[in-house]
Amino acid sequence: MSFEHQRHKPPRELAQPRELLVVCAPLRSNVNLSRIVRAASCCGVSRLLCTGPTKLDRKIARDGADAIAIESHRTLPPVLAELKREGYRLVGLEQTTGSHDLHHFEFPRRTALVIGNERTGLTPELLSHLHDVVEIPVWGMPFSYNVATATAMALYEYCRQWPTG
Amino acid sequence: MSFEHQRHKPPRELAQPRELLVVCAPLRSNVNLSRIVRAASCCGVSRLLCTGPTKLDRKIARDGADAIAIESHRTLPPVLAELKREGYRLVGLEQTTGSHDLHHFEFPRRTALVIGNERTGLTPELLSHLHDVVEIPVWGMPFSYNVATATAMALYEYCRQWPTG
Repeated sequence: MSFEHQRHKPPRELAQPRELLVVCAPLRSNVNLSRIVRAASCCGVSRLLCTGPTKLDRKIARDGADAIAIESHRTLPPVLAELKREGYRLVGLEQTTGSHDLHHFEFPRRTALVIGNERTGLTPELLSHLHDVVEIPVWGMPFSYNVATATAMALYEYCRQWPTG
Repeated sequence: MSFEHQRHKPPRELAQPRELLVVCAPLRSNVNLSRIVRAASCCGVSRLLCTGPTKLDRKIARDGADAIAIESHRTLPPVLAELKREGYRLVGLEQTTGSHDLHHFEFPRRTALVIGNERTGLTPELLSHLHDVVEIPVWGMPFSYNVATATAMALYEYCRQWPTG
């Protein structure tokens, strides 16, 4: 078998717009936020909700910075309450009691993936608003994934389950 | 349901050592290499093969820098030939003709995941040594994942298929 690099392969088509949103607690690092924006945009996500200053590094977010609508809110709890009213399942990414293994979690199509801070994770207040928490198995040091790496894995798993939107 | 953050949850146990290796073509960025090292180490990978200078950023790679054996080689083709003799399936991560969708690819347990350069990807010479190429579906701008993001997704998929090694 011989393989030839295809540099400008057309992207996949979604049969309907993605009903996946990403919600970010205040992150320490604009680099991580920018990486999340690029990965989410590649996955066809069109909306990201966050708080605080959202200065993206465009060398990292690339065209994702324009392709995704980034909404900055003063605080997240009212945002989560509104998403709940709109029928989103609020799914946090964290190691908690009662969390599901990402390998076995079935994402509802209409999911808001809620991402915590690099150091402090999801606060008890944010956790109290969630329907589910998923965690990614870890087998080795340093026993925790970088936040943007973990988000990429969760985005991948959602898209695997909903390849056409 | 209430969720409580568990900061020091014990990692999963492998029933046998991971037979997954990561092989990196020369990368432009030590940041990307360092991110790959942290993610691979979290996944229980114990060996990473690369070429050229491998100055890790320990703030990024964290304890992964010590937990993974990093072997630097002058050039990759002889390394790939040796891995082939040792029974590894050489699986590249790239957009090519004849590539498999990562969503549907069944990884052999004994896999060497081969990662290309950020700009140039896997060269024709490296591609000619591979058994398989997998690519990750992309739906939106900028139509390509960052190399460390793509590697994280591939590591996740391998571990999903081989959760206990």
